[in-house]
Amino acid sequence: MHSSETTLGRLCLVPAPLDFMCESQVPLSHVMPMHTLEVASQLSHWVCENAKSTRALLKRIDAVCPLKTPIQLQTLVELPRLVHKKGDHAAGVDTSSLLGPALAGHDLGLVSEAGMPAVADPGSSLVRAAHDAGIDVLPLVGPSSLLLALSASGLNGQQFAFVGYLPQDSAARNQRIHALEKHALTTGETQIFIETPHRNQALWQALVSHLQPNTRLCRSSNLSLPNMQIVSRRVGVWRKNPGELDKHTPVVFAFGP
Amino acid sequence: MHSSETTLGRLCLVPAPLDFMCESQVPLSHVMPMHTLEVASQLSHWVCENAKSTRALLKRIDAVCPLKTPIQLQTLVELPRLVHKKGDHAAGVDTSSLLGPALAGHDLGLVSEAGMPAVADPGSSLVRAAHDAGIDVLPLVGPSSLLLALSASGLNGQQFAFVGYLPQDSAARNQRIHALEKHALTTGETQIFIETPHRNQALWQALVSHLQPNTRLCRSSNLSLPNMQIVSRRVGVWRKNPGELDKHTPVVFAFGP
Repeated sequence: MHSSETTLGRLCLVPAPLDFMCESQVPLSHVMPMHTLEVASQLSHWVCENAKSTRALLKRIDAVCPLKTPIQLQTLVELPRLVHKKGDHAAGVDTSSLLGPALAGHDLGLVSEAGMPAVADPGSSLVRAAHDAGIDVLPLVGPSSLLLALSASGLNGQQFAFVGYLPQDSAARNQRIHALEKHALTTGETQIFIETPHRNQALWQALVSHLQPNTRLCRSSNLSLPNMQIVSRRVGVWRKNPGELDKHTPVVFAFGP
Repeated sequence: MHSSETTLGRLCLVPAPLDFMCESQVPLSHVMPMHTLEVASQLSHWVCENAKSTRALLKRIDAVCPLKTPIQLQTLVELPRLVHKKGDHAAGVDTSSLLGPALAGHDLGLVSEAGMPAVADPGSSLVRAAHDAGIDVLPLVGPSSLLLALSASGLNGQQFAFVGYLPQDSAARNQRIHALEKHALTTGETQIFIETPHRNQALWQALVSHLQPNTRLCRSSNLSLPNMQIVSRRVGVWRKNPGELDKHTPVVFAFGP
């Protein structure tokens, strides 16, 4: 707690479009409310997942809402590698030192490569440190692949879990798929997960082979983009024509009763 | 599957601002991308949680993006009561008959009173029926109180569950709180839940009394609104000054290690 809270900056959570590393880009106005772009355009201090992609985003914002501070004069600090790799929770890294600009009175942006920062992406340790330092946290509206995939899946949206990544080893992965399916069928809870794109096909084959025929399985790619594809079918139907996933496109998977 | 899929309309999932029943309203441009408003403005057939609040939303959209069809000429059909009350999943209602306009070639909007349709709100049965009828589902970007609350909580965003409502009976509620906390502390999974506003204070007292002092507990209200409040503290800190929740304001609760 600070004696003069009015002098502190805020931690602004700035969502990014979902076209990172994708073939086609969307206009920012497709996926970001004007207010989000306006707040982002006023910032000159950032904590980010990757400085290069943040600069690319700032250029796109500048084209819609002119930046208050030229990009080359802005301060961009990357989250520690360990947080990238293990996730904030497992890494146990203290990121409070990155809050310097906010403690000095500047609004500070947190941004990841795609979607909402600190959701299915690193950054929550910084948000936590902000709360502990009495810094206000301002989440801004923008796209989230998990939410778009869930709402469009036809699966239960009144009870759901994002379980992150499944194990890479095939025996462990199958075991995990069975455990998640058992939980989903018992409780009704939709299970949502992602994978690094080059492993998508192996995961997809495992899902189509090992889930029960009556379980509903949805795969969503290129969410919010012109080539968006969302297909939701019972596993028994998928088995007749499972299709193939390419090695480059991020996919959100979800299943449930 | 249809032989001439080009003649089918799409099911468009239109998010609504989070100021339903709130004191203050936000400008739509604060929380909705222009593309979302443009798509919504072209629709003339809707399935909704509540026809009256949908008409109010359409008026607000019209002020930013003129509607293609005057509101009084639009078709608004409410989701069945049973889906409202029990949720799509538990109700087991067949809502495929509501897809008539899309089958006849018109784009059909699905909208709830606040936030993303079919997420923490009814509508997933209609989305499911659309997939089964070969109707494309188009989720649009907009605000979600759950996602905003999660990203701003400082809790683990790489593994989380939305568990809906907790039991009303106090003994059952306490038992559920303990079970969720045990699960959260064992797995690291953030637990997110909501309550009808007039029961918020009872739930809040139970949380502050029964969770372990080291558990982090976040409460978020008026998300995306001018009077937004997001406070995230360890339970031991909350106990010293728990504050009080009013009977009218929706709150998103979240806790975890």
